[in-house]
Amino acid sequence: MAKGNINVSVENIFPLIKKFLYSDHEIFLRELISNATDATLKLKHLTSIGEATVEYGNPKIEIKIDKEGKKLHIIDQGLGMTGEEVEKYINQIAFSGAEEFLDKYKDSGKDSGIIGHFGLGFYSAFMVAEKVDIITKSFKDEPAVIWTCDGSPEFTLEPHDKTDRGTEIVLHIAEDSTEFLAEARINELLSKYNKFMPIPIKFGTKEVNDPDHTPATIKDAEGKETKEPQKKITVDNIINNPNPAWTKQPADLKDEDYKSFYRELYPTQFEEPLFHIHLNVDYPFNLTGILYFPKMTNDLNMQKDKIQLYQNQVYVTDNVEGIVPEFLTMLRGVIDSPDIPLNVSRSYLQADGAVKKISTYITRKVADKLKSLFNENREDFEAKWNDIKIVIEYGMLSEDKFFEKADAFALYPTVDGKYYTYDELFNKVKANQTDKDGKLVLLYASNHDAQHSYIEAATAKGYEVLLLDSPIISHLMQKLESTKENITFTRVDSDHVDNLIKKDETKISKLSEEQQKELEDILKEVIPAEKFSVQLESMDSTATPFMITQPEFMRRMKEMQQTGGGGMFGMGNMPDMYNLVVNTNSELVNEILTTKTKKKQERLITQSLDLARLSQGLLKGEELTNFIKRSYEMIK
Amino acid sequence: MAKGNINVSVENIFPLIKKFLYSDHEIFLRELISNATDATLKLKHLTSIGEATVEYGNPKIEIKIDKEGKKLHIIDQGLGMTGEEVEKYINQIAFSGAEEFLDKYKDSGKDSGIIGHFGLGFYSAFMVAEKVDIITKSFKDEPAVIWTCDGSPEFTLEPHDKTDRGTEIVLHIAEDSTEFLAEARINELLSKYNKFMPIPIKFGTKEVNDPDHTPATIKDAEGKETKEPQKKITVDNIINNPNPAWTKQPADLKDEDYKSFYRELYPTQFEEPLFHIHLNVDYPFNLTGILYFPKMTNDLNMQKDKIQLYQNQVYVTDNVEGIVPEFLTMLRGVIDSPDIPLNVSRSYLQADGAVKKISTYITRKVADKLKSLFNENREDFEAKWNDIKIVIEYGMLSEDKFFEKADAFALYPTVDGKYYTYDELFNKVKANQTDKDGKLVLLYASNHDAQHSYIEAATAKGYEVLLLDSPIISHLMQKLESTKENITFTRVDSDHVDNLIKKDETKISKLSEEQQKELEDILKEVIPAEKFSVQLESMDSTATPFMITQPEFMRRMKEMQQTGGGGMFGMGNMPDMYNLVVNTNSELVNEILTTKTKKKQERLITQSLDLARLSQGLLKGEELTNFIKRSYEMIK
Repeated sequence: MAKGNINVSVENIFPLIKKFLYSDHEIFLRELISNATDATLKLKHLTSIGEATVEYGNPKIEIKIDKEGKKLHIIDQGLGMTGEEVEKYINQIAFSGAEEFLDKYKDSGKDSGIIGHFGLGFYSAFMVAEKVDIITKSFKDEPAVIWTCDGSPEFTLEPHDKTDRGTEIVLHIAEDSTEFLAEARINELLSKYNKFMPIPIKFGTKEVNDPDHTPATIKDAEGKETKEPQKKITVDNIINNPNPAWTKQPADLKDEDYKSFYRELYPTQFEEPLFHIHLNVDYPFNLTGILYFPKMTNDLNMQKDKIQLYQNQVYVTDNVEGIVPEFLTMLRGVIDSPDIPLNVSRSYLQADGAVKKISTYITRKVADKLKSLFNENREDFEAKWNDIKIVIEYGMLSEDKFFEKADAFALYPTVDGKYYTYDELFNKVKANQTDKDGKLVLLYASNHDAQHSYIEAATAKGYEVLLLDSPIISHLMQKLESTKENITFTRVDSDHVDNLIKKDETKISKLSEEQQKELEDILKEVIPAEKFSVQLESMDSTATPFMITQPEFMRRMKEMQQTGGGGMFGMGNMPDMYNLVVNTNSELVNEILTTKTKKKQERLITQSLDLARLSQGLLKGEELTNFIKRSYEMIK
Repeated sequence: MAKGNINVSVENIFPLIKKFLYSDHEIFLRELISNATDATLKLKHLTSIGEATVEYGNPKIEIKIDKEGKKLHIIDQGLGMTGEEVEKYINQIAFSGAEEFLDKYKDSGKDSGIIGHFGLGFYSAFMVAEKVDIITKSFKDEPAVIWTCDGSPEFTLEPHDKTDRGTEIVLHIAEDSTEFLAEARINELLSKYNKFMPIPIKFGTKEVNDPDHTPATIKDAEGKETKEPQKKITVDNIINNPNPAWTKQPADLKDEDYKSFYRELYPTQFEEPLFHIHLNVDYPFNLTGILYFPKMTNDLNMQKDKIQLYQNQVYVTDNVEGIVPEFLTMLRGVIDSPDIPLNVSRSYLQADGAVKKISTYITRKVADKLKSLFNENREDFEAKWNDIKIVIEYGMLSEDKFFEKADAFALYPTVDGKYYTYDELFNKVKANQTDKDGKLVLLYASNHDAQHSYIEAATAKGYEVLLLDSPIISHLMQKLESTKENITFTRVDSDHVDNLIKKDETKISKLSEEQQKELEDILKEVIPAEKFSVQLESMDSTATPFMITQPEFMRRMKEMQQTGGGGMFGMGNMPDMYNLVVNTNSELVNEILTTKTKKKQERLITQSLDLARLSQGLLKGEELTNFIKRSYEMIK
C-alpha cells in the first residue's frame, strides 16, 4: 500500500485563482482595502494591549491613480510586514494571516473587526494587474522591503528605502483592465464597496472654506463695504463614513439620524422612509443593521433587492434572498453580520441553522416594531397603512408566526376611511352582518370607483364595506376564512344588496307569479342567455331596476389563479359569469311589462341593460358607441 | 536580491476547493459525469486512430445509489487509468488531463467533444462526500488500482481486483449531503444537467414490452378467445438523449422533429412553438443551437430565462444575458458553444470580442429567418404577428442593425385586420393622409374598444387606422418618426376627425361669432375649466355634439415615461390634459343655445358632457352612478 500527499500544482492553480477566483474582477479593490483595514485594525489592537509601542495616531488608507505610469496605489499606515513576514504570508497562497492573528489573540481580538478570512484576497490583484509590488515597513524596527511578482509563480524580494510604517500595494494595471485607471470608475467602486468601512479612505483632495478664516468687511476708497474673499484650504477627500448609523447604539440616535443615514444609503431616493427598525443582537449570532419601510407600490418585484448585506462594514451583496424572509425583501436598509456564510449555494444557506435563526429574529423584530408603532401612534399608523400593507399582508400569507402576531396591528380599512383591527371589525359588525345561519359576512369592495353603486347600496343598509385592494388580497381572505371561525368575505357586487347577507325576511312582489313568468319571457327575447342569467328579485321600488352581479366564489377562484397559484385548477381561464338582477317592484319594470309596442319594449330593455352593464364596466366598443348615440337622441 | 517561488499551501487550499469551488454543491454530479464522458470519448478517439486496439463497443455511464452503504457510484467504460496515471492526474490538483490530451492530439482530437478544462472538477466530489474511492483499470494491460482519500491531503493507492476496463468513482456521502442518496434528487440532477450528454447514462432499470414477443390468441376450455399476457423484459433505464436535435444537420430534420425536441426541452409546456431557427456555425466561433419563438404575452419579464446554454452537450445555465441580445432572451431553446467563457463577470462577457460576434450572428440569423418566413408564407406570418411582435418591436428599438433589416418584415396592422409593411402603408395612405404642410400623418388606435367612436369617425373619412397596442410602441413610434422622413403618428382621439390631418378646407359655422361667444359663456358656467378646455368647432351637423380629445404630444411623452425611460423628464406624473370639442353645427348645441330655462340648459350640457366622458372612459364612481340614475329617469 502506497501513501502520499496530494500536491497542488502551482503553475496551474495560479492562473485559475487569478482569473476565476471571483466572477467579478472589480472585487480586487474591496479585497485590497479590506487587507489595508485589517493591517490598521491589528495595529490598533496591538497598541491598545501594549504589544506595540508605536503611536497609533489617526491612520488612513489612501488610494492613488497614476494614469501615466498605469499604476494604482493602495497605501495604509497599519502594522506593515518584515521581509520574513512577507515570505510567510504572501508567498504561501491561502495562508490566511487574519486567521492566524485571530487564533493568537482569540479573546482580546474578537471584537477588533478583522475582515480577512482565507488569505486569497491579495491574489485577486492579479485579475487586473500584470505586475504587483508590495512595499512595506513593519512597525517593528526592521528595514522595509519590496516584493515584486509578475503573475508567474516566481517573485523577487529586495530591500527598500520606505521609511514610514505601513504597506503600499502598487498595481501595474494590465492592458485589458485600464478601466481601473479612470477616476470615475474607482470612485464608483469605492462608493459601492467601501462607503462604510471603519478606517478613513482618502481618494484625492478637495477645496473647502478655511474654518480659521472669517472674511472681514472692508471699505473701498469710496466707502463702499465689501467682504474680502473667503480663504480656501485643500483637505483630504475622505470617501467613507467610518461610523455608520447601524454600528451605533439605538439610544444614541435620533429620528433625524436614521433619516439622514437613509439618504446616505440611497442618495437618489427622494422620498423619506416611513419608519425604521434597528437590529442589534450578539447572541446566538452577531448581527446589526437598520431596516426601513419605504412607500410600497403594487409592483412587488420592483421593490426587491434594495437591502445591502455587509460583513464588518464591507459591502458584500444586495441579494439577501434566503437570509431575510421573502416578504421582507421589499424593505430597504443594511444588515451587517460576520456570521452569514457566503460563497455557498442559496439552498444551503436556507437550510443553515444560524441563517434560519437570523431570519426568524428579523421577522420577530419587524412584528414587534409594527405592534409598538400601532400602539404608540395609531393615527400615524393608519395614515401609513396603504403604503405598508403589501408587506404585512404578504407576510401574513407566507409566515404563520407573523400571521399570528399581525392580529395585533393588521388593519381593515373601510370605504369611508375608517380602520379596524380584526377584533374591532368583528365587534362592530357582528350584530348587523350575521346571516340567518349564524355566519358573519364581511363585505368588501376592491375598487371604490368601479363598484360605486354597489357600495352605495350596501352602506345605505348600514353595512360596513371594507376597501381591500391589494393584489394578493384574495389569497389572504381565503386564509382568514379558514383561520377565523364562521366568517366569509363577500364582495358588494356579488349579489344584490338584500341577498348579500341573507336574513329571514319575506319580500313582497308587486307582480303575480303569472306576471313574473310573462316578464321573464319578454326579457329572454332581448337579453342574450349565454351572457347573463336573469334573476327576478322583489326589491324596494326605489332600488335600481336592472343590476349586474358576479358570484363571489367563481370570481375569487379566478383571481387567485391569476395572482399566482391557489384557487382551483383551470379556473383562471374560464369565462366571467354574470347574473342580471331585475327588480320586479321597480316602476320601469312595470312599464316594460305594460308597454304595448314590441319595439318600445325592446328599446326599454336594451337601454336598461346597457345602463346596468355600464355600472359594472361591461359596456365597451361598438356597443358603447351605439349607446351614446342612442342617448344623444333621447336628450333631444 | 532574493528570488523564490510562490507556494500554494495545500492544507489551506484544499478545504477551500472543497467548499467554495462551486457555489452550487449539486454541480458535483455534472462534473463527475463530464469526466466519465471524457474518458469514454478519449477511448473512442484512440480506437478510431488506431492507438488503442481494444473493442470500443457501446459504452455507457452508470449511476448507482447504495442507500444502506450511503454511497453513490459513477461507473464508466472509458479508457481508465494506470496507477501511475492516477498519481499524475488525480494527486496533482489542477493538472488538467483534458488539456494535456487536447495538446497532444491537437489536430485529430479537436472535434472529439472533450469537456474537461481545469482538472478541478473531480475535487468537487468532496463538496458532498467525506471519502472518495477511485477504482480504475486502464485499457492498457496493467493491473487495476484503488485510490482512496478522506478529504485530507493524504491519500492511499492500492492494487484492486477490478477486471473490466474503466473507472468507478465511489462517493461516501457526507452527513450534510444525504439528499444525494435520494433517487428523486439524483433524477432531478440528471435531467437538469445531463439530459443531452453524448454517452448513454444508465440510472436503474425499467420494464418494457418484450419486442420479440407478440401475445398469441388462445382459446380456453369454453372456446372463449383471450390474448395471452404480454411478456415483459427488464432493460437499462437510459435517462439521456445522446443525439439531441441541435447536434444534427438542419437538412436531416423535419418540422415535426423540431417540435418534438421542443417538447423534450419543455415537457410541461402545452403550447407549440410558432417557429424555430437552427443555429449552426463553426467559424469564427463554434456554435450550434435551436431557438424557438413561443407565443408572447405582454408581460416581458415572465418570458425570460428560458434559453438553455450548453457546452459540448453539458448543461451550464439558463442565464444567457450578455450572450444573446436582450430582446431575444424572450425566445426559448438551446445554445451550445464551447467558445463562451464562463466563470467570468457578465460585464466582461459583454465586452468579449468572441461573445459579441456570437450575439451579432444570432441577431442576423433571427432577422434572416423572419424575412424568409414572411416571404414564403405571408398569410401565416400575419396570423402569427400578434404573438411575435413584442420581440420584433423590442429588437427594432434596441438594435440598429435589426431595425434596418426589420423594414422587410415588420408589420403594421390596421383596426380592420389588414397588415401592411411600412412601404405598403406609405404608398396606401400618402394620397389621402398627407396634410397641407406635406407631412404624412399615420393614424393609430391603441385599443379597439376604448377608442371605438374615434376609430369609426376616422375610417368613415377613408383613413387607415393602425392598431398599435404593444407596451413599448410609443418608443418605437418616436424612433420611426426620427428615422423615416416627414411622418408623424397621431392617435385617433387626439383631436376631432377634421383636425387629425389638417387640410386647406374652409368650414362653415351655422353660428355667428356673437352666438359662438354666447355659447362659450353658457358652457363655461357648467363645464369645469380645470378639467377641460372648451374648443368650438364647425363640424358636420351629424357628427357627435360633444367629444373629448387628448393631444398627442403630451400623452405620448407620459406613456414613454411610464414604460421605462425616454419622453421628457417629469412628464410621467403630470395630470392628464383633455379638450372638450363642441360641434357648433349640431342640432343639440343649437338646442342648448336656444333653450330658455337655465335648468334645462344645464341638464342638457351635463348629460352631453357625461356622454362624451363615457366614450373616453372618463366617467367613474359617483359621477357614473349619478349619470345612470339620471338616465333611468329619462327612459321613463
